[in-house]
Amino acid sequence: MGNFPYQNPNLTIRERVADLMDRMSLEEKVGQVNQHLYGWECYEKKKDGQIELTDKFKEHVKWGKGIGALYGLFRADPWSKVGFETGIAPEDSWRLVNQVQEYVINQSRWEIPALIVEECPHGHQGLGGISYPTNLGRGNSFNTELTKQSSHLMAQELAAKGVHLALVSTLDLAKDPRWGRTEECFGEDPILAARMSEAVITGFQGDLISEEAAYLDKTVVEINKQPEQIGVVLKHCIAQGEALGGHNSGTVTIGGREFKDIYFPLLKSARNAVGVMAAYNDVDGVPCHINGQLFQKTLREQIGYQGIVMADGIALDRLEDVFDEKITSANAALEAGVDLSLWDETYLQITEGVKSERIKESVLDAACARVLGIKLLLGLFEHPFVEDPQEKLAKVLDESKENNLRVAEESLTLLKNDGLLPLDHKIKKVAVVGPNANSLYALLGDYSAPQAAEMAHLTIFHQIQTIFSESEVVFSEGCEVRNTKNQLPKIEAAVKDCQDADVIICVLGGSSARNFDMEFLKNGAVSSKGINMDSGENVDVASLSLGGQQLMLLKAVKELEKPIVTVLIQGRPYDIQEVQQLSDAVLVGWFPGQAGGTAIARTLIGDNNPNGRLNVSYPLNSQQLPVYYYQRAASKKDDYYDQTGAPLHEFGYGLSYTQFSYERLHVHQESDTMTISVTVKNVGEFTGKETVLVFVRLLGGRVIQRHKQLKAFDKIELMPDESTELTFTLSDDQFYFTDMDQLYKRADGCQIMVKNLSEEVSFKN
Amino acid sequence: MGNFPYQNPNLTIRERVADLMDRMSLEEKVGQVNQHLYGWECYEKKKDGQIELTDKFKEHVKWGKGIGALYGLFRADPWSKVGFETGIAPEDSWRLVNQVQEYVINQSRWEIPALIVEECPHGHQGLGGISYPTNLGRGNSFNTELTKQSSHLMAQELAAKGVHLALVSTLDLAKDPRWGRTEECFGEDPILAARMSEAVITGFQGDLISEEAAYLDKTVVEINKQPEQIGVVLKHCIAQGEALGGHNSGTVTIGGREFKDIYFPLLKSARNAVGVMAAYNDVDGVPCHINGQLFQKTLREQIGYQGIVMADGIALDRLEDVFDEKITSANAALEAGVDLSLWDETYLQITEGVKSERIKESVLDAACARVLGIKLLLGLFEHPFVEDPQEKLAKVLDESKENNLRVAEESLTLLKNDGLLPLDHKIKKVAVVGPNANSLYALLGDYSAPQAAEMAHLTIFHQIQTIFSESEVVFSEGCEVRNTKNQLPKIEAAVKDCQDADVIICVLGGSSARNFDMEFLKNGAVSSKGINMDSGENVDVASLSLGGQQLMLLKAVKELEKPIVTVLIQGRPYDIQEVQQLSDAVLVGWFPGQAGGTAIARTLIGDNNPNGRLNVSYPLNSQQLPVYYYQRAASKKDDYYDQTGAPLHEFGYGLSYTQFSYERLHVHQESDTMTISVTVKNVGEFTGKETVLVFVRLLGGRVIQRHKQLKAFDKIELMPDESTELTFTLSDDQFYFTDMDQLYKRADGCQIMVKNLSEEVSFKN
Repeated sequence: MGNFPYQNPNLTIRERVADLMDRMSLEEKVGQVNQHLYGWECYEKKKDGQIELTDKFKEHVKWGKGIGALYGLFRADPWSKVGFETGIAPEDSWRLVNQVQEYVINQSRWEIPALIVEECPHGHQGLGGISYPTNLGRGNSFNTELTKQSSHLMAQELAAKGVHLALVSTLDLAKDPRWGRTEECFGEDPILAARMSEAVITGFQGDLISEEAAYLDKTVVEINKQPEQIGVVLKHCIAQGEALGGHNSGTVTIGGREFKDIYFPLLKSARNAVGVMAAYNDVDGVPCHINGQLFQKTLREQIGYQGIVMADGIALDRLEDVFDEKITSANAALEAGVDLSLWDETYLQITEGVKSERIKESVLDAACARVLGIKLLLGLFEHPFVEDPQEKLAKVLDESKENNLRVAEESLTLLKNDGLLPLDHKIKKVAVVGPNANSLYALLGDYSAPQAAEMAHLTIFHQIQTIFSESEVVFSEGCEVRNTKNQLPKIEAAVKDCQDADVIICVLGGSSARNFDMEFLKNGAVSSKGINMDSGENVDVASLSLGGQQLMLLKAVKELEKPIVTVLIQGRPYDIQEVQQLSDAVLVGWFPGQAGGTAIARTLIGDNNPNGRLNVSYPLNSQQLPVYYYQRAASKKDDYYDQTGAPLHEFGYGLSYTQFSYERLHVHQESDTMTISVTVKNVGEFTGKETVLVFVRLLGGRVIQRHKQLKAFDKIELMPDESTELTFTLSDDQFYFTDMDQLYKRADGCQIMVKNLSEEVSFKN
Repeated sequence: MGNFPYQNPNLTIRERVADLMDRMSLEEKVGQVNQHLYGWECYEKKKDGQIELTDKFKEHVKWGKGIGALYGLFRADPWSKVGFETGIAPEDSWRLVNQVQEYVINQSRWEIPALIVEECPHGHQGLGGISYPTNLGRGNSFNTELTKQSSHLMAQELAAKGVHLALVSTLDLAKDPRWGRTEECFGEDPILAARMSEAVITGFQGDLISEEAAYLDKTVVEINKQPEQIGVVLKHCIAQGEALGGHNSGTVTIGGREFKDIYFPLLKSARNAVGVMAAYNDVDGVPCHINGQLFQKTLREQIGYQGIVMADGIALDRLEDVFDEKITSANAALEAGVDLSLWDETYLQITEGVKSERIKESVLDAACARVLGIKLLLGLFEHPFVEDPQEKLAKVLDESKENNLRVAEESLTLLKNDGLLPLDHKIKKVAVVGPNANSLYALLGDYSAPQAAEMAHLTIFHQIQTIFSESEVVFSEGCEVRNTKNQLPKIEAAVKDCQDADVIICVLGGSSARNFDMEFLKNGAVSSKGINMDSGENVDVASLSLGGQQLMLLKAVKELEKPIVTVLIQGRPYDIQEVQQLSDAVLVGWFPGQAGGTAIARTLIGDNNPNGRLNVSYPLNSQQLPVYYYQRAASKKDDYYDQTGAPLHEFGYGLSYTQFSYERLHVHQESDTMTISVTVKNVGEFTGKETVLVFVRLLGGRVIQRHKQLKAFDKIELMPDESTELTFTLSDDQFYFTDMDQLYKRADGCQIMVKNLSEEVSFKN
């Protein structure tokens, strides 16, 4: 431990940052706000297994006289071209971090360590990482406690590897299923996403940052961060899902009231995150990366957010949409409160900008101070190196697998069941067909790492084979996901396999699986289309029809007149009107992760009673978009001439093997809270979990209020005939809306809606 | 002439209104702001041909101690159930107006006449009226002079019938072709719509209201209104075309910058109109009918608008979306500046509202004063009765027919021509097939009156027959527009008719033709769907595919391997990817009106060289919406995985039988104007008209600017080899945009784009 005040753990972080900043040169400060490198380009694995740091890395550290943050040291995927041969095994990760950190500290006059930043959209995108269901699936669980647990396990996994910051998507809303990143969203609802965001923050960070006091005014001793507490950077800030046409990073035209009503609750949920990532999109013309109103005023001043704002990948360079010169872009982004770059050239030019007085040093200082504050908060100065996790990592991975199965089970949504499910375990022959039936990658979403060969048994087919131990289980691919050529022989082969089956399980859907032969943009988004990849970042679709000859396959096996369960593995809602007609049961897995195959097999046989509820309004097709449920209740023509305007399934829909009844809705108002109670009973024959959704329709004001908005939810498990009373407490701020005059006001009253029950409440005295 | 000051034509209108208002009771004032009745319910045609005023009418006049305005006295259509037997012939209209007016004046203590208001979306929706192409077609002409002439003819026609106010759609933009009212728009572009609005105002009103001085401060003697000058009420104010999902009167979520950049220029174009009609929709939650910012601040204070604001049909009752009680709605609408009701119950309650002090009498007074001001402006007090038009009406109808043909010709857009067109007039046999080939109603848009039997020769088939006088011309329906049942025999019959034809003209598309057996809402919108009607008010579609078996018909005749011209008669762009592949030429008529058949026949034979240019970006299908061209130029993923993001045809596209070249673009900046010149040459072999479009891309600011925006246009006619230099003058205010800080600012520069030519200009000194 050094002797400078900034190295003194008994001083507040604010004091230490101030001391350190005073000592730093312009170049050193600019170094701290840059996260320029692709992490996987910083090391090379030699033939003898030794890891060497690359010249590229060393040159950048020299340039920055240290380094702000390092993204993706462990990223492994087709874009990075990192696989098992070239990448770092989980158990070796700590060594590489220490190697990097030692180099950085030695090159830094003030011994400032680097932030190690990794993607963790549904588990760590690194070799051997646990791959959970995508958020679109996790959102269906409506289980914040489970999300917290998973997040805490992810944090332990990443901490053991030496990671400080996890990038986690929680702030995007799935407003247009054409968008390829729909799978990364916790659905369309801002309150669900907000509660999930909070669960993610708590799971990863614990109480690292809290409302009570500014972390800057505490000492690290007081904060007492534990090794498994790591920071999250929530993606993306904000409204990216509103892009016109579902075009990735497209322009957003929504107005001030729409923005505030929907996104303010979501922004508030980011309150205690260590970081948020700015979104690529604009809002009504203003790119998020230069939106000071958003970051400085709303997030920091109004909400009290204490963390950093990270740029999205090369997003600062994309400010050429607005500015001619990168220095102008850099200045605007710094002024808006963007503290840390990502891969761009823009923040590399800050030094020149300050020297030529086109950037005020004070805005650089503010950004640098926030980055340093986070480094101190995360204990980088006291614990720059990570310990050998030894057996700790293996243990957390084992625990994670168990947790992952629970998450996967709760993420599934049963959309149709004519009584076929659950299947009898004594069934003689099960035919499993379809492009997503026997592919592990098909189960994973975008942002997934290469999977070890020994994971292959986790496919749906293999897991059905395992669980239906008394049955003959056969598999046939049937067709590819999107490829339309030469599919007939495959379909014929599948039909043949199904001929003497007692039940057919047809596994269809989409795919976010990337291949190593694809091409990518500078920000990792797909630029060449894999023939069978039809979702994920930059893979937007116009039509929501199932790809390739999948419907032909389903129709062909339907001819056999056997019971059919269709399992859809998808990262967005596809048009499944015909699928529902042709199938006796339809179960959806939303890229359910490594445990998805097991979860599906267990659900089919009845070991898991499905309990996921749709977190999107499931559209008929893309021609009726948008269909999200909380649109304003304007007197309008709801239906089209040629089809209904209503979605195929409502937000919150999802079947169980049992049924629940609702009664005794009571609403009790106190001075600044409202208590709502309702009794739910399991009136079916299976033990099952139920998600209870409390919707509110606001009343009053001079704007057209929305049909309804989710305000609270809970999940319970009930045995047959068991009933329970649930109580929800809604705080005063949940009854606010933006009125005609743009002021945020309390409603005059509301209608409370729980399932089939409803009560109207007046707030007027 | 009476002796009260308000009856003195030598006092200013302001003085006269003030005097009259002082004398009026509360009930009388409330009567003046009501336009409660359906006009066609005010009279009854007796067997002897005598017209009697109904009790319903008399009771309402008694209630209001006079009457504010009377809508649709001459409206004839399936909704009103008025046809030739029950309705009023054009030459008799003046008598009914006088009969009504005499009754009203006698019942009014102050002898205040009623405003007679009629629909005139594409000509008067009354018996014997001239039916022009819909605005979607007229917009393709880009011919403001022609629009002014047509409007002036419509004004003469209506004036001869005794009408004071014409309701004309000019302010809606066609942003989503799913919307059934797309046909009523001058296209997607605000500047085109603005110039057309101005042409409509000038055509109808002349200089009745001008920028120079408030009409209130003039005397009617000074104003010197001529009989053929009548007022227009422009529909709708505003942004109705932005409704989510293309749902009629749906909710609009656009933000402040989007609103100002697109709609402010359009609002400015309404500057001199006698009236605007408020739109059904909200903008970012606020219903237009209570949007005081829109009407009082922007339109009246900022723009200097002097006219009235009329409610849309029962729109004030729809304020139940916001308010519990009609009196609250009435108060909010009056406060927002809505002066005159339409059919609603809401404004009937103003008396009670004022008496119970829930409505301030001052807001009622302001509305009443504006209505009275307009009555004085339109000369109602000096000339309450209309003269027998005698032969004047017949003359104007004849002139109108000629004008209508010119408009119809300029409204057509030629989308494909492999060299087949123009057709040889010596062609031996022409087969005309398709559901829109031999129906007069198919040519008319929504808001059309019943047509006299003797008009039947105006269909496309009959006009082709007439013009191709040396050919055998046969007709076969082929199929219906939407009906899918029992179409095969019709298709087979058509194929048979085509077998020995030398060219096949296949007339497909949509239909806004209403039937007398349909059902309608209280505001006249369709509530039951006619089997073959697929556009018009409240007839929104999800899919843009051609209806029924139309594609099957086209494919069937294509089998004959003969040249095919497809003529599309439609009120929105349908998906015509396959149509273009199957046809040698594709010509579109946008519900081209009574002269549409003639215009199409003349175009096919080459008597008219097609010159319409698309005023919408023509989409591939509804799955890629929105595709309007002036979206912000954000760095985004433009294309979908499964199809391009680009429209099938760009805004401004349209073929001619000749070609034009562009050269010598010169831009000259002066202090507050910019002069742009370009030379256009006819380099083909036919005399033809060319629309020259000047696009601007703004530079600067802290928002992402739009790809381009139309700023000026002109239309010229050139003989082969002829060339001409066009000059455009852009005023300073055309370079403004709404910046990050919501301020309306001048750009730092711009790029000027004319066809393939472009020049960048800096405004910085």
